[in-house]
Amino acid sequence: MSTIQIRSPYVIFLGGIQDKTLAKTGAGLAKWCAQDVLGQIRLSDCNVDLNLADLTLEQALAQGAKSLVIGVAPVGGSIQASWLPTFVKALENGMDIINGLHTNLATIPDLLKAQSRGTGRVINVRQVTTEMPIATGRKRPGLRLLTVGTDCAVGKKYTALELTHALNAKGINATFRATGQTGIMIAGEGLPIDSVVSDFVSGAAELISPDNQPEHWDIIEGQGSLFNPSFSAVSMGLLHGSQPDAIVVCHDVARERVSTCPDYPLPELKDCIDLHLQCAKIVNPRVRCIGVSVNTSSLDPSKRRAYLDNLQAEFGLPCVDPLIDGCDALVSVLQEQFQQPVGQVHA
Amino acid sequence: MSTIQIRSPYVIFLGGIQDKTLAKTGAGLAKWCAQDVLGQIRLSDCNVDLNLADLTLEQALAQGAKSLVIGVAPVGGSIQASWLPTFVKALENGMDIINGLHTNLATIPDLLKAQSRGTGRVINVRQVTTEMPIATGRKRPGLRLLTVGTDCAVGKKYTALELTHALNAKGINATFRATGQTGIMIAGEGLPIDSVVSDFVSGAAELISPDNQPEHWDIIEGQGSLFNPSFSAVSMGLLHGSQPDAIVVCHDVARERVSTCPDYPLPELKDCIDLHLQCAKIVNPRVRCIGVSVNTSSLDPSKRRAYLDNLQAEFGLPCVDPLIDGCDALVSVLQEQFQQPVGQVHA
Repeated sequence: MSTIQIRSPYVIFLGGIQDKTLAKTGAGLAKWCAQDVLGQIRLSDCNVDLNLADLTLEQALAQGAKSLVIGVAPVGGSIQASWLPTFVKALENGMDIINGLHTNLATIPDLLKAQSRGTGRVINVRQVTTEMPIATGRKRPGLRLLTVGTDCAVGKKYTALELTHALNAKGINATFRATGQTGIMIAGEGLPIDSVVSDFVSGAAELISPDNQPEHWDIIEGQGSLFNPSFSAVSMGLLHGSQPDAIVVCHDVARERVSTCPDYPLPELKDCIDLHLQCAKIVNPRVRCIGVSVNTSSLDPSKRRAYLDNLQAEFGLPCVDPLIDGCDALVSVLQEQFQQPVGQVHA
Repeated sequence: MSTIQIRSPYVIFLGGIQDKTLAKTGAGLAKWCAQDVLGQIRLSDCNVDLNLADLTLEQALAQGAKSLVIGVAPVGGSIQASWLPTFVKALENGMDIINGLHTNLATIPDLLKAQSRGTGRVINVRQVTTEMPIATGRKRPGLRLLTVGTDCAVGKKYTALELTHALNAKGINATFRATGQTGIMIAGEGLPIDSVVSDFVSGAAELISPDNQPEHWDIIEGQGSLFNPSFSAVSMGLLHGSQPDAIVVCHDVARERVSTCPDYPLPELKDCIDLHLQCAKIVNPRVRCIGVSVNTSSLDPSKRRAYLDNLQAEFGLPCVDPLIDGCDALVSVLQEQFQQPVGQVHA
C-alpha cells in the first residue's frame, strides 16, 4: 500500500491552448516546484507561455525528464486527439504521463499500446489504484498541521503550500502533504483523498503522513469542510487520519453560501474552529487552532487590514491572507507553541 | 442512479455448512423478512436447519423464487466450488444470486457464462456499481431517524429493524433503510454505504431515504461512529445525507475500547449524543436524540434494569435493550414529539 509517486524532473505539456486560464495546473507547478520543471512542450497552435524553456519531447528526454505532466484542463476536461502522438512517443521512451483530468488515460487504446511497448506509465492522479488500509488510530511520531475550512475551495491547498515554504525558509523541517490532484502534481506524491472508498479515507490519510522525526512538520492539504454536507465525510476522515497537532482554518470573505449546497449559509468562523477542534480532539487531545487564513481578494484594499485585525482581536490568533501577508505569522506561533529542547522526543 | 434492488421472494442457500453460527445472514433473513422467504436450499452434507421448508432449486423455481440469497459466510468468506452447480442452474433459469460475501461473484468464470446464457443476475451487495450523486443538502419531505453509536457493531442495525417493526405495529408508516450488506438483504434494497467513494457518501445517503410523505418515517441503519477514527468518515457522510429529525444512540455495555483502535477508550454516552447532535444540526437544526439503545447481554440480569434506569434518569430519555424491552418506549417519544394534526405538512 502506497501513495501515488511522480518521478521528477518534469516537462509541462500545454497542448495547443489559446487561453492562459486553462493552464492553471501548469502554472501552479511552475510556481510551486520550479526546481523540478525542465520546461514546457507547446504544440504549434499554442500561444500560452509559462515563461519556461520551450522544449521538444526529444530535448526533454535528452535532459532527463522522467514525467510529462499534462498542465492544461480544456473545457470539458477531456484529452485532445492532437496530444496523442506526443504522449505515445513519451511512453515508448520511458517517460510517465501524469494526468489530472477526469478522463482515465488507461481507456485510450493508443496509450495502452504505447505503454505496453515502452517503459513509461500512465498515472491518473485522480484515481486510487492500490488497496488502502483501515485506519488504526495509532499515534505517529512527528508533528502534523491540517488546513481546514469553512467550505471547499477557500485556500486550503494554497495555505498549506505557502506555510510549508515559510517553515522551510526559517530552516524548519516541513513537508507539504498532498490530498488532491493538483497538490499531488506539485508535491510529486500523495493521494486523491476524495476518490478513496469511504471505509478507507482515514487509513489513506494515515498513509499520507507516516511516522516522522519528532520535530518534523507534515503540512497536510485539507479537503472540503465539516460544514459542507456534500463533502463532510472526506473532511472527517482526513481530520481523524491526520491526527493534527495544529489546524489553520481557511475562509474566503466573498463566500456566503456553501458552494455545493446553496440552501446553507456558511458557518461562523468561531463555530468552524470549535467543531473542527472538537472532532480533532478525539484523535489528538492536544490539538489547537494556530491561525486563520483568509482569501481577501474580493475586499476593497483599504478595508483588508481592518478586517483581518478585527478577526485577530476576536480570536487572539494571527489572521493572514497568505497571498499578501505570507505565513510568517503562523510560523511564529508554531515556533512558540511547539518548540522543544533539542533531543526531547515529542510523544 | 439508484440503490441496489433485490427481487423477492427469496430462497436461502445454506451450502453444506455444519455450524449454525456461519448462517447468521440466513437466520437474520428468516427472522426479519419471513414473508419474503420461501424456504432453504441445503446441500447433502449440511446439518444446519433454519426451520424453513427444504426446497430443491427446481421447487424454489416452481414456487416463483426470484432470488437465491447466499445465507452463509464460511470462514475466510469465499465461495465454495460445491455451490457453483446450483448457482449456475439458478442463473440460467432467471433467478438472481444475492451475494454478501467479499468475493465478487463476477470474477468466477462459470457464473459469468451462466449469467450470459440466462436472465438471472449476480448481485454483490457489498459493491456499488452505479454512479452515485454528490449530495445537495436539499431538505426532503418526510421524517427520518438515524441510529448512531459509540462504536461499530453495537446494535445500530438491530435497533433500526426493531424500531421499524414497533412503529408499523402501531400503524405508523415507517420504512427500514439499509446501509450494509445484511440490512440490504433484509430490506430488499439499499446501498453498502461504506463501499461508496468518499466524495459521494452523503449523496448515497440522500438516495437511500428519498422524498416521502410528511408523516412517514425512514428508519436509517447507522454505520460506524463519529468516535471511531477508522470509520468516522462513513458516519459523518451518512449523518449529513440522512438529515435526521431524530437519532437513537446505540451502545454495548461490554465495549470498553474502540473496536478497530484499541488505543482509544469508548466515548461517554453524553459526549456521543452531544457530538452527533451538533454535527446533525448542520443539516437539520431541529434534530433531537429520542432515546438510547443498549446491548446489555453481558450484564448480570439482576443488574440490567438498574443500569438502564440510571441511564434513563441521567438523560431524561427512554433507555432500552431492544432485544429484551422492544422499542415501544422509543415509539412513544416519536408519537409525542412529532405528532401533527392530519393534513399539516412537516416542512
